Amino acid sequence: MHESLRRIGEFGFIGRIARTPLFRPSGVIQGIGDDASVFEPPEGKVMVLTTDMLVEGVHFSAEVGLELVGRKSLAVNLSDVAAMGAEPLDAYVSIGVSQNTSLAQLDEFYRGLCDVAREHRVNILGGDTTRSPGPLIISIAVTGFASREEIVLREGASPGDLIYVTGFLGDSAAGLDILRRKRSWPEEKASALLKAHLDPRPHIEEGRFLAKSGWVRAMMDVSDGVASDLRHICSRSSVGAVLREEWIPMSRAFREYCERFSLDPLELALGGGEDYCLLAVVSRDAQEKLEKDFERIFRRPIWRLGEITPGNDLVMIRKDGTTMLLPQMGWDSFRNE
Amino acid sequence: MHESLRRIGEFGFIGRIARTPLFRPSGVIQGIGDDASVFEPPEGKVMVLTTDMLVEGVHFSAEVGLELVGRKSLAVNLSDVAAMGAEPLDAYVSIGVSQNTSLAQLDEFYRGLCDVAREHRVNILGGDTTRSPGPLIISIAVTGFASREEIVLREGASPGDLIYVTGFLGDSAAGLDILRRKRSWPEEKASALLKAHLDPRPHIEEGRFLAKSGWVRAMMDVSDGVASDLRHICSRSSVGAVLREEWIPMSRAFREYCERFSLDPLELALGGGEDYCLLAVVSRDAQEKLEKDFERIFRRPIWRLGEITPGNDLVMIRKDGTTMLLPQMGWDSFRNE
Repeated sequence: MHESLRRIGEFGFIGRIARTPLFRPSGVIQGIGDDASVFEPPEGKVMVLTTDMLVEGVHFSAEVGLELVGRKSLAVNLSDVAAMGAEPLDAYVSIGVSQNTSLAQLDEFYRGLCDVAREHRVNILGGDTTRSPGPLIISIAVTGFASREEIVLREGASPGDLIYVTGFLGDSAAGLDILRRKRSWPEEKASALLKAHLDPRPHIEEGRFLAKSGWVRAMMDVSDGVASDLRHICSRSSVGAVLREEWIPMSRAFREYCERFSLDPLELALGGGEDYCLLAVVSRDAQEKLEKDFERIFRRPIWRLGEITPGNDLVMIRKDGTTMLLPQMGWDSFRNE
Repeated sequence: MHESLRRIGEFGFIGRIARTPLFRPSGVIQGIGDDASVFEPPEGKVMVLTTDMLVEGVHFSAEVGLELVGRKSLAVNLSDVAAMGAEPLDAYVSIGVSQNTSLAQLDEFYRGLCDVAREHRVNILGGDTTRSPGPLIISIAVTGFASREEIVLREGASPGDLIYVTGFLGDSAAGLDILRRKRSWPEEKASALLKAHLDPRPHIEEGRFLAKSGWVRAMMDVSDGVASDLRHICSRSSVGAVLREEWIPMSRAFREYCERFSLDPLELALGGGEDYCLLAVVSRDAQEKLEKDFERIFRRPIWRLGEITPGNDLVMIRKDGTTMLLPQMGWDSFRNE
């Protein structure tokens, strides 16, 4: 363990975190500093709870700076809450500190985490700090709440329903590609792609809008890539889907990047994952109103990708009019078919 | 990653866990298999939430078998719920699987975990499975509930209050000593000590009894050792304490073990930790009724250790009548004073 951390010790470090203010104090009876947190659940609501474990070298690299790691760790959990149509409540942050993590780095991590907590009015109500003889490990749990009728599960899609996403696809995968391959690409063109990968924004407001509309049959967030995530919704609902290649929403920066480095944009957009926008299946009757209201409120379109079909195939209509099956295991194995 | 695990893949493994039945189905709307769990919080109650991260090589050794690791991982979280006076509700289990963990070992882990979940009617409602390039990592979150007035925090002790523990101290430390030093000691004498360390029982019923009694001012579970844990209560309540050496409850098996291997029983009992019984500060008026009722219900005594004092010193009256300060950092550094 790094000397600076050894000096303040575990209790000292928890004490530092415990001084973080509550960003949403209502209902909190006990935060950090006891055997457990204590809170009053929002009255008349149901609760949601999601957990995620992030391991250095598997889910993130410490090279990007721990402030961004802190931001993203919380953001991806908030994205899961958004995917239920719920409003986030509190976060619990456990961290296994590797030998070469310094106190300054841990402070960066918590600064990033607290910034995202503040942005979304989420309290940090608990957690655990321990040492790890291996990589840095982050495990976060986030609670949320919604009315029972607002909650949207992954199941519930029916043939004829329309499939939407709330943001561009592929930006995050391109950002990862820039980092991994150390591409030389002008900063003004790279920055949106890098931000999509390193500092994704959870679509909480979009999720709340969709949940409250009553039009959404099934929803999840795009973490593994639409090709894989849509399969979860379809298999849970025993349906298939057909997507149109020309409808897959891609940013200008993304298309330009793919063109410059001869990458298949469709492969990154459908298989890259970590977009953290929402994938929603919506009743066909609501199409016009949904598209109009979403654009009015969020000042950008909600993107229709295709529709739910009977059967269980996931099919894509290519730009040239031919059809192909989306692969079982994500876009990578696609190419081998 | 071990071949057997690679074959079924992450989703396959989550699917296996998701088939675990609910042990307390009331109020559960969605368990494993969506972006988050969904549940109705118990009406008119407050909720508690605790998380713990356990790292192989720091908190446990895989050599003892992952079934016991699974049992203890959940038990220590349930102990935190017990320490609030609350009743456990649901568990969320994230696991970072190391390279040399086999599917058979993971099955053992979940078998142990599910057995403890069943014993305490706790649902496993979520979690995350990932791979770890380092040690095996377990991160568990447990929710619980109680009436607002039943919740007992660490603060609230006043001079004159009495200090109790709900079980023997030191058995777990002796069990760990047997394992670490590979002591040769007859199985019938070692088994209770090993069980205390490897398979501790969370004192949930004891916690509920104490919480409902209304006599308890402050409470926590004994995880770091009474010398350290009592300090948390005292510093949160701005009080001190005096303990009597002759009152420290030690099992016959523990005393015999310490005698045989020339260990200081007081050092293990107060500094060893991981006893996972409850440390409770109780109003002096309730002494007689508490001791009588506890013994009637649980068929064993609740052990009085001493009392809360003004000031902030933690003092022990030795058997020979001399007094000494309990050390700042647990029993080990005691010796250097």
